[in-house]
Amino acid sequence: MEPPPRPLHATNLQQKLRLVTQQWAPKVIAQMNDYHVKLAKLEGDFIWHSHPETDEVFLVLSGRLEIAFRDGSVTLEEGEMYVVPKGVEHKPFAAEECRILLIEPAGTVNTGDAGGTRTAPADAWL
Amino acid sequence: MEPPPRPLHATNLQQKLRLVTQQWAPKVIAQMNDYHVKLAKLEGDFIWHSHPETDEVFLVLSGRLEIAFRDGSVTLEEGEMYVVPKGVEHKPFAAEECRILLIEPAGTVNTGDAGGTRTAPADAWL
Repeated sequence: MEPPPRPLHATNLQQKLRLVTQQWAPKVIAQMNDYHVKLAKLEGDFIWHSHPETDEVFLVLSGRLEIAFRDGSVTLEEGEMYVVPKGVEHKPFAAEECRILLIEPAGTVNTGDAGGTRTAPADAWL
Repeated sequence: MEPPPRPLHATNLQQKLRLVTQQWAPKVIAQMNDYHVKLAKLEGDFIWHSHPETDEVFLVLSGRLEIAFRDGSVTLEEGEMYVVPKGVEHKPFAAEECRILLIEPAGTVNTGDAGGTRTAPADAWL
């Protein structure tokens, strides 16, 4: 889908989050060069996957996110961020719904190299 | 400066912000591919400039930021973001200190094509 034309108003993250109705399906809210800023709601367990081509930024807007790695895990509270390096296997988990902002190249798929039934459209604008 | 090695803990934005002592001098807190995530404190008026090579993401963490363009202006409250397109002249302004998160390619200079005395080091890690 094409990005909307350049607006002369700011994008309010909380307002946009209200429009996210489906968990584990990141939605694009902004484009910077060939990167997308996305919002997502996560709850429960995701699948192990990696992104062989790119790092991925997670920023928690509300709630708590855990990211499991093969060598440990990281807990992100509200207002905390983490960069998952490219090629590093990870598995997000949230005991209760958390809301996150993601930054990654346009076209990055949520399930990375794993694919499968949890794969959401990569470039769906909100 | 080289980025620090991959940590197994999240980066807390508020904790990092406390370490920013100088206004108008963005500091890098994370790297994603060849992009940097930066924090900055802004107060007062900046200079007109543009970034001919890149878009630039502004996200307000606290306070209020105005970005003037030649054809209008945008006001960003806390929790709001805006993408300044590459090549578009802009001038940030904050009546009171605001704290922002920036996303832009590594090496992007705060004064863009304008240069001058307000230029801060591009890749200073916090």
